[in-house]
Amino acid sequence: MRIKKTDLLPIVNDLKEEELAGLIDHTKLKPHEPKTKMLALYDEAVRHNFASVCVNSCWAKTIKNYRKLNPSNVKLCCVVGFPLGQMSTEAKAFEASYVRKHGADEVDMVINIGKVREISSFSGRERGLARNYVLKDVREVVKASENAIVKVILETGYLLDEEIVEACKICEEAGADFVKTSTGFGPMGAYPHHLKLMRGVVGDRLGVKVAGGIRNFLDAIRSLYAAANTKELRTPSKFRIGTSAGINIVNTLGWAKYTDVWFVEEIPCKICPSNYTSKLPIKIRNHYIKKCRTCAEKEYRKFRDF
Amino acid sequence: MRIKKTDLLPIVNDLKEEELAGLIDHTKLKPHEPKTKMLALYDEAVRHNFASVCVNSCWAKTIKNYRKLNPSNVKLCCVVGFPLGQMSTEAKAFEASYVRKHGADEVDMVINIGKVREISSFSGRERGLARNYVLKDVREVVKASENAIVKVILETGYLLDEEIVEACKICEEAGADFVKTSTGFGPMGAYPHHLKLMRGVVGDRLGVKVAGGIRNFLDAIRSLYAAANTKELRTPSKFRIGTSAGINIVNTLGWAKYTDVWFVEEIPCKICPSNYTSKLPIKIRNHYIKKCRTCAEKEYRKFRDF
Repeated sequence: MRIKKTDLLPIVNDLKEEELAGLIDHTKLKPHEPKTKMLALYDEAVRHNFASVCVNSCWAKTIKNYRKLNPSNVKLCCVVGFPLGQMSTEAKAFEASYVRKHGADEVDMVINIGKVREISSFSGRERGLARNYVLKDVREVVKASENAIVKVILETGYLLDEEIVEACKICEEAGADFVKTSTGFGPMGAYPHHLKLMRGVVGDRLGVKVAGGIRNFLDAIRSLYAAANTKELRTPSKFRIGTSAGINIVNTLGWAKYTDVWFVEEIPCKICPSNYTSKLPIKIRNHYIKKCRTCAEKEYRKFRDF
Repeated sequence: MRIKKTDLLPIVNDLKEEELAGLIDHTKLKPHEPKTKMLALYDEAVRHNFASVCVNSCWAKTIKNYRKLNPSNVKLCCVVGFPLGQMSTEAKAFEASYVRKHGADEVDMVINIGKVREISSFSGRERGLARNYVLKDVREVVKASENAIVKVILETGYLLDEEIVEACKICEEAGADFVKTSTGFGPMGAYPHHLKLMRGVVGDRLGVKVAGGIRNFLDAIRSLYAAANTKELRTPSKFRIGTSAGINIVNTLGWAKYTDVWFVEEIPCKICPSNYTSKLPIKIRNHYIKKCRTCAEKEYRKFRDF
């Protein structure tokens, strides 16, 4: 997927700073962070008017109590079954109801990736069983979250295109509010190709959240272009950016309207999932290598060794 | 820590194949594996008489039912709060009791790494609170596991030496049966230095499990040397190796007694945690860089760019 400067400039000129800040989930999920960093995360989110803070479930209580002392509009978003999504359905549902009880307004769950892959690789009865498992997995978490916004992380790096489509359909059927690309701990981050695919399936009925590898302003705007091209989709209920570089991204917008140095004309392979092939399961890797051979932008492939 | 061939040869000559196989937890924890691979994992463990199969909690039921059809002595080991350990205590305890109900004989939980780091970086009341949190965290899981063997993963890559010592003491106080080095998803794998440290603290009262980066026979024997140097410690209740290369390791032992080509004289830095500095928190990285400067093996440092 090739993205030109002329594609992104209208979005940047249209965007207001508070609008962009309202789309950002300020995230800190590394396991070694102490309490002080978590409270600082909340403070930063309040100062910049971000949509939410996104933390692990052991910090739910801490942030809830801190928010009582420093009330604000910043939502509390907790991850569930993170980052592998290989917890049993019951355990995921319990964790979701736990964080809901302790002040979480939003729940980011991870889908069972192994079971999603079973749907496309098995047939007949086993296929139906796997599909039902995934459907029930998401549905139980949605039920346990009681009116909280539920985002389902698909970990797109492990899935083929048709598996992503199927997973999006299942999420919609199960009553989730968002589909989300990656955890940030998986084999690859969020690519515009996957975002466009997901938006194509869920339309404006569900939201799309991009996460994993959104490190600067260009990444964020590229994601906006791929998954939220119209003004109606650029609201916190339809699009979110999960990143720990939120402050940098919002600050860049201030001067990005007056110059275009933030835009680096990259060769299309750089933002193509086919370019990343190291830690993938063999089936996914072969799929991408095959796609790469018939790519419309193949004249760029000779520059691929970056 | 320098390990010579003469250190390892007595262990290899002493070891029997069934003894080594009995120490191995046959592991598959990647999130994208389908059901077929999990059943194959169990079959392999039965064929080679491994101590257990180690899987994520969503596979507990599957393997339990499969074991009913193919009974064996292979134990079922499930991970809890994996791999970040940042789930709330209640959610970890629920997951532990869930897997216990569904046939797990052993539970591998992840300690709350952020809270362990708080113990050493805070002081006074906050320090006590953090220590109590970690103690309660482990204790609740031990209680919920009901007589199952509980192994506590410390994720040594994120911790300083004194934090590892403190964490080991807490695990013993909380009633855990094993301390385990890493998840395999963390910043670094298991190093002999950490193993020796952990064995030094827990003595023969608790077991030590090595996991993360044990890819071949040499790694396994090195870990045995560091954490189970005597015959009494080389039993499944005192020492375990968590690896997905178990078949390779056991098969190598067959010919390892007749030749020593499996031993590669490596420079000591290669198996030193100071050598790995890329994804660590800044405090840990500085700690290792400082240690490296005063290392007894420092003449090897000039070869360090491997």
